Amino acid sequence: MTRVHVYGASGYAGLEAVRLILAHPELHLGAVESRSHSGEALGAHAPLLRDCARTFDGPGSVLAALAPSDCVITAGAHGAARAVVPSFLQLGARVVDVSADYRADDDAVYGFAPLFREAIVSARLVANPGCYPTATLLATLPLAPFSPSTIVVDAKSGITGAGRTPAISSLFCEVYGDVRAYGLEGHRHEAEIERGWQRAGISASLHFTPHVVPIARGMLVDAYAICTGDIAFADAADAFARFYAGDPFVRVIDRAPSLPALSGTNDAEIHVSVKGNVVRVLCGIDNLGKGAAAQAVANINIMYGYPEELGLAHSAIAC
Amino acid sequence: MTRVHVYGASGYAGLEAVRLILAHPELHLGAVESRSHSGEALGAHAPLLRDCARTFDGPGSVLAALAPSDCVITAGAHGAARAVVPSFLQLGARVVDVSADYRADDDAVYGFAPLFREAIVSARLVANPGCYPTATLLATLPLAPFSPSTIVVDAKSGITGAGRTPAISSLFCEVYGDVRAYGLEGHRHEAEIERGWQRAGISASLHFTPHVVPIARGMLVDAYAICTGDIAFADAADAFARFYAGDPFVRVIDRAPSLPALSGTNDAEIHVSVKGNVVRVLCGIDNLGKGAAAQAVANINIMYGYPEELGLAHSAIAC
Amino acid sequence: MTRVHVYGASGYAGLEAVRLILAHPELHLGAVESRSHSGEALGAHAPLLRDCARTFDGPGSVLAALAPSDCVITAGAHGAARAVVPSFLQLGARVVDVSADYRADDDAVYGFAPLFREAIVSARLVANPGCYPTATLLATLPLAPFSPSTIVVDAKSGITGAGRTPAISSLFCEVYGDVRAYGLEGHRHEAEIERGWQRAGISASLHFTPHVVPIARGMLVDAYAICTGDIAFADAADAFARFYAGDPFVRVIDRAPSLPALSGTNDAEIHVSVKGNVVRVLCGIDNLGKGAAAQAVANINIMYGYPEELGLAHSAIAC
Amino acid sequence: MTRVHVYGASGYAGLEAVRLILAHPELHLGAVESRSHSGEALGAHAPLLRDCARTFDGPGSVLAALAPSDCVITAGAHGAARAVVPSFLQLGARVVDVSADYRADDDAVYGFAPLFREAIVSARLVANPGCYPTATLLATLPLAPFSPSTIVVDAKSGITGAGRTPAISSLFCEVYGDVRAYGLEGHRHEAEIERGWQRAGISASLHFTPHVVPIARGMLVDAYAICTGDIAFADAADAFARFYAGDPFVRVIDRAPSLPALSGTNDAEIHVSVKGNVVRVLCGIDNLGKGAAAQAVANINIMYGYPEELGLAHSAIAC
Repeated sequence: MTRVHVYGASGYAGLEAVRLILAHPELHLGAVESRSHSGEALGAHAPLLRDCARTFDGPGSVLAALAPSDCVITAGAHGAARAVVPSFLQLGARVVDVSADYRADDDAVYGFAPLFREAIVSARLVANPGCYPTATLLATLPLAPFSPSTIVVDAKSGITGAGRTPAISSLFCEVYGDVRAYGLEGHRHEAEIERGWQRAGISASLHFTPHVVPIARGMLVDAYAICTGDIAFADAADAFARFYAGDPFVRVIDRAPSLPALSGTNDAEIHVSVKGNVVRVLCGIDNLGKGAAAQAVANINIMYGYPEELGLAHSAIAC
Repeated sequence: MTRVHVYGASGYAGLEAVRLILAHPELHLGAVESRSHSGEALGAHAPLLRDCARTFDGPGSVLAALAPSDCVITAGAHGAARAVVPSFLQLGARVVDVSADYRADDDAVYGFAPLFREAIVSARLVANPGCYPTATLLATLPLAPFSPSTIVVDAKSGITGAGRTPAISSLFCEVYGDVRAYGLEGHRHEAEIERGWQRAGISASLHFTPHVVPIARGMLVDAYAICTGDIAFADAADAFARFYAGDPFVRVIDRAPSLPALSGTNDAEIHVSVKGNVVRVLCGIDNLGKGAAAQAVANINIMYGYPEELGLAHSAIAC
Repeated sequence: MTRVHVYGASGYAGLEAVRLILAHPELHLGAVESRSHSGEALGAHAPLLRDCARTFDGPGSVLAALAPSDCVITAGAHGAARAVVPSFLQLGARVVDVSADYRADDDAVYGFAPLFREAIVSARLVANPGCYPTATLLATLPLAPFSPSTIVVDAKSGITGAGRTPAISSLFCEVYGDVRAYGLEGHRHEAEIERGWQRAGISASLHFTPHVVPIARGMLVDAYAICTGDIAFADAADAFARFYAGDPFVRVIDRAPSLPALSGTNDAEIHVSVKGNVVRVLCGIDNLGKGAAAQAVANINIMYGYPEELGLAHSAIAC
Repeated sequence: MTRVHVYGASGYAGLEAVRLILAHPELHLGAVESRSHSGEALGAHAPLLRDCARTFDGPGSVLAALAPSDCVITAGAHGAARAVVPSFLQLGARVVDVSADYRADDDAVYGFAPLFREAIVSARLVANPGCYPTATLLATLPLAPFSPSTIVVDAKSGITGAGRTPAISSLFCEVYGDVRAYGLEGHRHEAEIERGWQRAGISASLHFTPHVVPIARGMLVDAYAICTGDIAFADAADAFARFYAGDPFVRVIDRAPSLPALSGTNDAEIHVSVKGNVVRVLCGIDNLGKGAAAQAVANINIMYGYPEELGLAHSAIAC
């Protein structure tokens, strides 16, 4: 059994982490720290957690409760993790940060298991990948052998990706009825994707457009890799099959990904096709699951020697 | 031509008022005052108004621009109207307040035309009814002759009714997938409904439950009036037909109201049925239209002697 | 272990039954019969079941596979169960029918556990309650001691309740943006509710209005019971507490029910309040879960002596 | 005044055509023929048309009513137009076919005004472009001078594009919560796009992925044109400015297109950006408006010498 504290527990990613820890047979929930909702019952704030007879703990509670054998998931606003993670590490605890604070940091292991499973095993600090980079890297890393020169990444995300902090652009009426492109002048996730590509030997130019679609959770990335010569479908399919052989969560399928079927899971569905010199790869994930909290729990499984799927084998609930 | 200023123009009701004024052949748009979005282009804030080459005017701009022949629609947060309306009136202008500030005030005419059309004609200050009271009074006032003792009002509203000020409870993810009852300990609209009933001679006890449904605009009220003896359907139908004879906006129909078909209009659709001693009345409106801005424009039409339907005869756009 | 066959497996209720059986530790899946989708992979038809390497079985497959120790969930179109259930029973199997075919039939036990738990234990044929009657009876049965004379039931349902057979009224564009009342001339569920009331000693007149809201699954019923004299809140609260004492699935809560938090579960959330002589009860369920397949599985647990919550203790997945 | 009949009037595009004709000052509505809904009131079938006191006319009614000065919009199922258009033309009438039947036909003028405005003036038969080709050609034709070798077109469409004929894949529950790629093995609209490109001198390879998103109407196309050398943004912007100079409906803007703001209109919003050798163009339209019925009405305006914007200058209604 490992005790896992959640710092920044009242946002969408934090709440999803709490949900997964509660359902995990080898993890138990430590402090659930929230500055903004301290003292409030979890079930009042998030009816989904109505079975959990806990209230949010106040500032400093993770630190106060921390033991060296514990793990912390830090899920606060960007910048918040930098303020607390060093003290967590100093006490001997291990940390999985789902914010963006450490993703470009050499002191952290980038928690993308298909590339860094080995390093995660012994990591003290894991920087959990962002949702867009997760789906994009899953869709593109196996393409390294084809040396694409240009990769277009057209991404569609549920609005939970924008977090639970109130903002006009996240209001129901602003999301409803629209497919809203944003970040048209550049998006901070581009650098993270390019770093991932570098590590895998891809030097393509990235053309990335994120969109908000009127769904709560789920993300679909359409990646179009332009290569120099024609690619045989069998070669592309083979590259994906080999890359994900043994990965318990990634499935290469021959239909389009279904976002409702991925909701709440750490799974990814990938569809590959080829036309001339362009390989098109569709990758569907749950932005809050595989793209945040479920990937964090999978990383904890790797760090603490549990089977990678433990607590993550359930399927989605949808119609 | 009448010049109409909009105070509190950047909220949902204010923006809808701007849209209707721009489309109205006898109204032209004066100042569009917004404290929070001063200087921002209307079209950037609300793409629907992309054709309008205006920016939001800053604090004090309505007062600065005001002429005695002008009209002001005040649409700010509750409490804001009280701070500015007296100075607007003092300058000789007329005011339609769509906030709740003056609805219980004897100095204002309650802008519910089926009851107070005469008084609106000469009003200096019109208190525009709330969306819930509008739909509820439309559904219930014709029932006065039947002296109901108890009226259950089960109301379903689009989330625009909660305004455009960011709040967790208005976020896409909090509204999506739910039918959320609220105000279970009492809702400020109840007093407004009961005042309306008093004026029409209804002394029933009110049992009111508001719900948020995952739509942007639209409101459906189901009213169930419990009477002492059995009611003949013909008598109920006749009461509604007589009450709304001559009303250009209210239609008594024999199918269920369709909210998309009412979107953007000042119309109401009403369905009446009877079972024993209970008369059930369904009333559909657009909470931002008939329930706010369109009703305000109709009141301005009455105040300034324009045909009541002027600028409001368009139909909705939906599939 | 009990083997459970699903007849009419390709509709929403049938698919949900398959999902729950697959996740149940003591049930295993027998034939999954579908006339319309015979031979198709379950995962292709319903991506949610993508982990299930099964195809729909053709007509007659349940009957061919049936053993006397088996159970069958019949979930076909209304009328279909009557054609096959007798032969299933004759072979010695037990049947839970989630269609409406046997709900008024004396040969079947009405599968509403709060009333008929004892009879379900030994039933050969259980008529699973409809979703509207389930939520309505949960909301109203504890009120019998107060002898209400009139009960208004205003119900809001996700569109899965209309089934998966293509119809214009179930199309995305027809449901989106509307709150659609229907069955205004009477609804077949009324008789089922009144039968339930009779059995519990309630003789109130029923005023029932069903609505479709733009959500996939979930149901909220607002019941307003008009009694002869004033009711004390403590008495009403006490009646509900006693009625549901020991029920593993029903919770009386002091906030509004949350439909996303109930999705995929057999749970019900109930909120009770009183104003004068009117008791208002809100009841939220998942129309496909508690209102269909999960209730069927709970009934199978009762019939076969498993703990009532077995396989049903998971929580929902939502944001 | 021109009389316009609508053949295949009960589908989404046909109904939208009826709505636009009713609101047009120089068009009046002739026969509204529907095989499947003959005799039904338009307002019962489509509440949006509740003000229209007409019933659907039966088979043969357009032909029976046709005069040589009339125009017909044919909007039936694919294949249906071929069966009736020749007889309409033979009677001397002019036809705008919004189905796909004549889009590859040399006897018809392809009704894409930015390319063929002149030819439309005198056309007897106009083949109205499909919604995907409309948005794609708008986004890409101005790029001809840059000779792109590869164009990726990632398209997102509201579900009205699938029509009103009941199908499982158009049900609310199948569209809700998902972003569904389809046509992964090729889509019939690709040939139409490539024909449009040929006519404009573009010989790029097309990589097209259509998606259904959970909105009723609206379409966003993201086009990524890969060119041989780096492109200066000013050159790309200039190309679009010149191409659409004088076009009353197309706006090149510096924010992302807003689909709700385009609903019900014939407008298109286009955003252009450049990164290295890739020009990215986002184009938003209403798939039922600019992508079908509104474009048809604009074509009728051109054919009959009315101002091109007549009856199409209204703005959308949304929040």
